[in-house]
Amino acid sequence: MPPPTATLSVPSSSSPSLFPLSSFSSSNNPHVSSFCPAPPTLPKFPSLSKPKTPLRNLPPLSAVSIEKETLISERPHTFLREADGGDDGSVRSRFQRMILEAQESVCAALEAVDGAGKFKEDAWTRPGGGGGISRVLQDGAVFEKAGVNISVVYGVMPPEAYRAAKAAADDQKPGPVPFFAAGISSVLHPKNPFAPTLHFNYRYFETDAPKDTPGAPRQWWFGGGTDLTPAYIFEEDVKHFHSIQKKACDKFDPSFYPRFKKWCDDYFYIKHRGERRGLGGIFFDDLNDYDQEMLLSFATECANSVVPAYIPIIEKRKDTPFNESQKAWQQLRRGRYVEFNLVYDRGTTFGLKTGGRIESILVSLPLSARWEYDHKPEEGSEEWKLLDACINPKEWI
Amino acid sequence: MPPPTATLSVPSSSSPSLFPLSSFSSSNNPHVSSFCPAPPTLPKFPSLSKPKTPLRNLPPLSAVSIEKETLISERPHTFLREADGGDDGSVRSRFQRMILEAQESVCAALEAVDGAGKFKEDAWTRPGGGGGISRVLQDGAVFEKAGVNISVVYGVMPPEAYRAAKAAADDQKPGPVPFFAAGISSVLHPKNPFAPTLHFNYRYFETDAPKDTPGAPRQWWFGGGTDLTPAYIFEEDVKHFHSIQKKACDKFDPSFYPRFKKWCDDYFYIKHRGERRGLGGIFFDDLNDYDQEMLLSFATECANSVVPAYIPIIEKRKDTPFNESQKAWQQLRRGRYVEFNLVYDRGTTFGLKTGGRIESILVSLPLSARWEYDHKPEEGSEEWKLLDACINPKEWI
Repeated sequence: MPPPTATLSVPSSSSPSLFPLSSFSSSNNPHVSSFCPAPPTLPKFPSLSKPKTPLRNLPPLSAVSIEKETLISERPHTFLREADGGDDGSVRSRFQRMILEAQESVCAALEAVDGAGKFKEDAWTRPGGGGGISRVLQDGAVFEKAGVNISVVYGVMPPEAYRAAKAAADDQKPGPVPFFAAGISSVLHPKNPFAPTLHFNYRYFETDAPKDTPGAPRQWWFGGGTDLTPAYIFEEDVKHFHSIQKKACDKFDPSFYPRFKKWCDDYFYIKHRGERRGLGGIFFDDLNDYDQEMLLSFATECANSVVPAYIPIIEKRKDTPFNESQKAWQQLRRGRYVEFNLVYDRGTTFGLKTGGRIESILVSLPLSARWEYDHKPEEGSEEWKLLDACINPKEWI
Repeated sequence: MPPPTATLSVPSSSSPSLFPLSSFSSSNNPHVSSFCPAPPTLPKFPSLSKPKTPLRNLPPLSAVSIEKETLISERPHTFLREADGGDDGSVRSRFQRMILEAQESVCAALEAVDGAGKFKEDAWTRPGGGGGISRVLQDGAVFEKAGVNISVVYGVMPPEAYRAAKAAADDQKPGPVPFFAAGISSVLHPKNPFAPTLHFNYRYFETDAPKDTPGAPRQWWFGGGTDLTPAYIFEEDVKHFHSIQKKACDKFDPSFYPRFKKWCDDYFYIKHRGERRGLGGIFFDDLNDYDQEMLLSFATECANSVVPAYIPIIEKRKDTPFNESQKAWQQLRRGRYVEFNLVYDRGTTFGLKTGGRIESILVSLPLSARWEYDHKPEEGSEEWKLLDACINPKEWI
């Protein structure tokens, strides 16, 4: 028997801490309803930019808070509860193995390209089950700040979140539905203004079959994405990056890349600026309308594509000479990164408000950022070209 | 006849652009109901730190958006609609005069103490009436970034916002209620890490008497505050600052300072950090349960207290020698300032989401800020003392 979980642990998204909340509802998933009529944290913007992105609903904040984590001195072999089995071949177990391995291989590649910086590791568990490992490289030779986090969350979701649970007879009040979520999330900020920032995040979400509603099914979803945020455009870099994303997608479904590329442009939108955070990549969420094994392989392929998509760009740009004004422009774009993450990113905002591990959530923020009043790059300049591509997303390949 | 206003313009708070949304509802004001059952932008945090602060409700975002502003080349004599009269002695007219004068005198004092930097002025109007003047001094000798903004907003609020309008017979649908709001708002970030950041904001809000509900009254409120955010504590500076606030309060009511001091500590709370943004000052909102003339005088007194409260501290600290690590600590505290303003400040978050003038709203952000992973000052250090005072607010006088 898993130990009882007193609070609902809820996942986050583009922050490198937990998972996307969006996993709680899905327009792709007819079995799961939106369970909160007016999402308390997410205003319904007039959605000019996101016609195809389903509006996500969150559980009321009053219903959720993440248990306080306990730092542990050594990384455990697994964060899975014993009842889940250690390495039983279940999707949750194989997904955990995948993210642990991805964390290892990405960190090794980053340390190799940095040459000087080393990752510092913090591991923690939560009383109700699950835990996480944050790895942060700060002030290296190449990277200003690089965070690669994995986490595993056990929680319970309100019964309203789970339509199948509502099939219970009227006189039978459905109970909360236990869920499991696991993910890897990372933001990499290099020092050189010609070397782009990278973010990636892959996550898996699963509910138990509700015990008090016989026949109600177990639910599951995958989500994630990888996206590039340069301060300057090198077309060959952006093409290379998008090509690797497309290659990973095309192995599974030719519709994936165009669909997830657009989804990415739509998600990383800084509405008050009318700009995307960067030059996109892929983003998907609530994905469950394909074979589960196929999606596990797809998420694994995407995670394994991070190193070949990113490291060659860093190798090429890490030592490019730059001047003060180019550094200042990078810092201004870092300010936009902060604006997106603190104002719009669902994972970050929700994580902050429900008591996630703050240092892990905010490791996505750059080491430094800048805001100048009414800064406008000169038309036609390299800075202007970047801004233009953030305002008007392009097809790169 | 005032020109029709197509959209609802909604005010902001601790950002130096507009006014607080909180003016829309008030536990102090029995005539005005909460008009939005589930505020879309403001989750109901378990309010450990704000027991006495009424929860503010916002109109649904779908109902509001601020009209696009038009930059104008010269500052106008008034932003009041002709129908309001230019200088007719009304409270709205006298409040506008007060904030225009306060902007002048504060900017003059800041330029004098800076010695090198000059304010750049941007003025704008909106088609439906109102407008604003932003003044920004950037990269001066003493100030990294100093913004002093005034604005006047004409808008309409949904009838549900105004309980008196609901007194209409069932077959008579009440119309939207026009409102007027005016305010001054300012954030001043000095370069020297021993010189504190200052924020102040004073604002006045008024509805028309609804035309379709005979007898329904005109409503009005005052709000505002002045607060200090140092990176290092000089007790004499904090005492001086709080003494001036208390002196301004005591001229009107002995209950004001203790009440508004606590309100300030409660409002500027970075919940995910468990820290206040700084060392407080005074903050009040929805204030209408005193004589209107008295409150106009009180707001004027508070605005006039900014220069004597702040400039002597700047004079004393602007040239204090500092080292790199003290500068880095200031930058980390600037990061907290960004977190508060982008995540919690009602004015900022609402302004961003409804289409206020972005550059004016975000002038509150520092020129630069910093986030280090898991930074913890050494116990007993000067940095630790500041953090401790932000976690455990103190009585300074």
